[in-house]
Amino acid sequence: MTISESNLNASSSTWLGTRWPIIQAPMAGVQDAALAIAVSNAGGLGSLPAAMLSLDQLDAQMRQLSTGTLQPYSVNFFCHVPPMVDEARELQWRTALAPFYREFGIDADAIPAGPGRAPFNDASAEVLEAYRPPVVSFHFGLPAPHLLKRVRSWGSRIFSSATTIDEARWLEAQGVDAVIAQGLEAGGHRGMFLTEDLSTQLGSIALLAQVKRAVRVPVIAAGGITDRAGVMAAFALGADAVQAGTAYLLADEALTSPMHRAALQSKANEHTALTNVFTGRPARGIVNRLMRELGLISAAAPQFPLATSAMAPLRKLAEAQGSGEFSPLWAGQNAEAAQAWPAARITAYLAGTEGLQP
Amino acid sequence: MTISESNLNASSSTWLGTRWPIIQAPMAGVQDAALAIAVSNAGGLGSLPAAMLSLDQLDAQMRQLSTGTLQPYSVNFFCHVPPMVDEARELQWRTALAPFYREFGIDADAIPAGPGRAPFNDASAEVLEAYRPPVVSFHFGLPAPHLLKRVRSWGSRIFSSATTIDEARWLEAQGVDAVIAQGLEAGGHRGMFLTEDLSTQLGSIALLAQVKRAVRVPVIAAGGITDRAGVMAAFALGADAVQAGTAYLLADEALTSPMHRAALQSKANEHTALTNVFTGRPARGIVNRLMRELGLISAAAPQFPLATSAMAPLRKLAEAQGSGEFSPLWAGQNAEAAQAWPAARITAYLAGTEGLQP
Repeated sequence: MTISESNLNASSSTWLGTRWPIIQAPMAGVQDAALAIAVSNAGGLGSLPAAMLSLDQLDAQMRQLSTGTLQPYSVNFFCHVPPMVDEARELQWRTALAPFYREFGIDADAIPAGPGRAPFNDASAEVLEAYRPPVVSFHFGLPAPHLLKRVRSWGSRIFSSATTIDEARWLEAQGVDAVIAQGLEAGGHRGMFLTEDLSTQLGSIALLAQVKRAVRVPVIAAGGITDRAGVMAAFALGADAVQAGTAYLLADEALTSPMHRAALQSKANEHTALTNVFTGRPARGIVNRLMRELGLISAAAPQFPLATSAMAPLRKLAEAQGSGEFSPLWAGQNAEAAQAWPAARITAYLAGTEGLQP
Repeated sequence: MTISESNLNASSSTWLGTRWPIIQAPMAGVQDAALAIAVSNAGGLGSLPAAMLSLDQLDAQMRQLSTGTLQPYSVNFFCHVPPMVDEARELQWRTALAPFYREFGIDADAIPAGPGRAPFNDASAEVLEAYRPPVVSFHFGLPAPHLLKRVRSWGSRIFSSATTIDEARWLEAQGVDAVIAQGLEAGGHRGMFLTEDLSTQLGSIALLAQVKRAVRVPVIAAGGITDRAGVMAAFALGADAVQAGTAYLLADEALTSPMHRAALQSKANEHTALTNVFTGRPARGIVNRLMRELGLISAAAPQFPLATSAMAPLRKLAEAQGSGEFSPLWAGQNAEAAQAWPAARITAYLAGTEGLQP
């Protein structure tokens, strides 16, 4: 077996429609259309994270994205089932947070219980239809069949994340155009949707190899791939494209906060962990004080995305003091390889364009 | 970057002394010298697991190994600090196991509290000295300095496993000749020794990339590498050799039990997990009834290796009934790629010898 630049380029042009088989992972909270535009214009597939956008914001971002590049791009939505508020659990959660509220002088009774992130729905489809994005990707499974059908009707291709072999098979059976194999190393939210058992989650090498054997649709490797060597490893394992998030966290066009950037560029980047304390769902971030003191996985945390509301004022006050100890510092394992470069340069580096090896 | 057969071969002959840069991982309980001999004679580095051998057995196995091959081989020891027996915890543990004792009609009071696995010590060094093995590898850190010095004095090269970047740096500072980067996908015991925090453990892609940047000694990739594609991926990430265990579990020369082989060849291989219920230390195996019912990580389990004694009669009776539900079915993630072949063929396949791609 020989892996070379020419294989890499050839494989990309046949199915993804981009110059390079490199996808910038959608990262809600740390980027907007600007990063996606830069990546798409550089020959990768830029992604807009829509999970935290209002309908107006979605429309504005889609307008910016669709006019900012003539190249293919992707827009990403969450498709969780919004939970009912569980008052008892909310109380338990606020009790767990009480010592921090006291420390920061926060009046717990004044914190609104907000709705948090909304899943993809008819209203978001309505906004999206005007733009007919080349790719729509989903996290936490897929939306209801009528929504999926609607997205398909515009000609958008549909991608979704699998964290187990069963999830990959399920997604293929629903007719997705590509499966994103999200290895355990990946930063941000685990896309898991057929199980809540974290012991089922597979490292990138193991997941990618097995998903490639299990499905026929293209498989996109994600998780721990932050440098050119990781891209080559993914292609050796049969990946049809690579999705990199952490690699873009320090990009000039990313909106990553100064404390998040500082953590990514410190030895703290060597210890990331899965935690549910920020949103209610397991997600990988750099270990900080909140994670250490509440425990990484807290039984008290309300269901996703309800855990977020009670955390918001803590995060805001800590950040105002220059501290990231109460903020989700999402990052994958191998964050130390992330480069503070323009997104175009990061894309070219991951793609192996000559002269850009660091 | 281009990876080819020629790179692979060239890199091997320079440092490992074998024809191929492929190491068969030592697997206590499922193999003896026969597997190591077959691998070494096939051009890989065969390994004898010595952790569960008496001194007499060690001597006999070393004699068999050293006369069975003229090629380099390795012998592996654990180097944990033997714990004091904690009577309260032992009682708690036997209470947790009581329902299973009742089910199998076992008299709990008749179970001896055995010493379990012994670490590398002066007596084992005494046996080893007669053979001066080309490589001695350690798990759970390194033995005491005087023992390490003694092993070095014979000219044996010393390898040990790192599961974090800090462990890799520590091992290099102690002067090891190579670091085995044991990714989270790996089957059997985690080699972790500077931490007991499982959240610090890194997937193979992330660990290998970072360990390569952190140390100058050769780095051996381990964890989830069960097929040729995995080997190529490891080399893309800069590995100087690959250590594969699960890939050899179905080898003709392995002593893997029929129920273990059956589990490895069933859909059960898709769900392995880290558990401490078999020995007291976290190790990855195929999820079975004992793991499900006790919980993967049990606070009641005595310290390694003391948890083993109370489990022994359960395992023995269940196995006599053809059940592997109470046995450690050690396996890495990606076990489905393991092949029931002679070890020489597995070695040639992993090494990429032409004509042996399945």
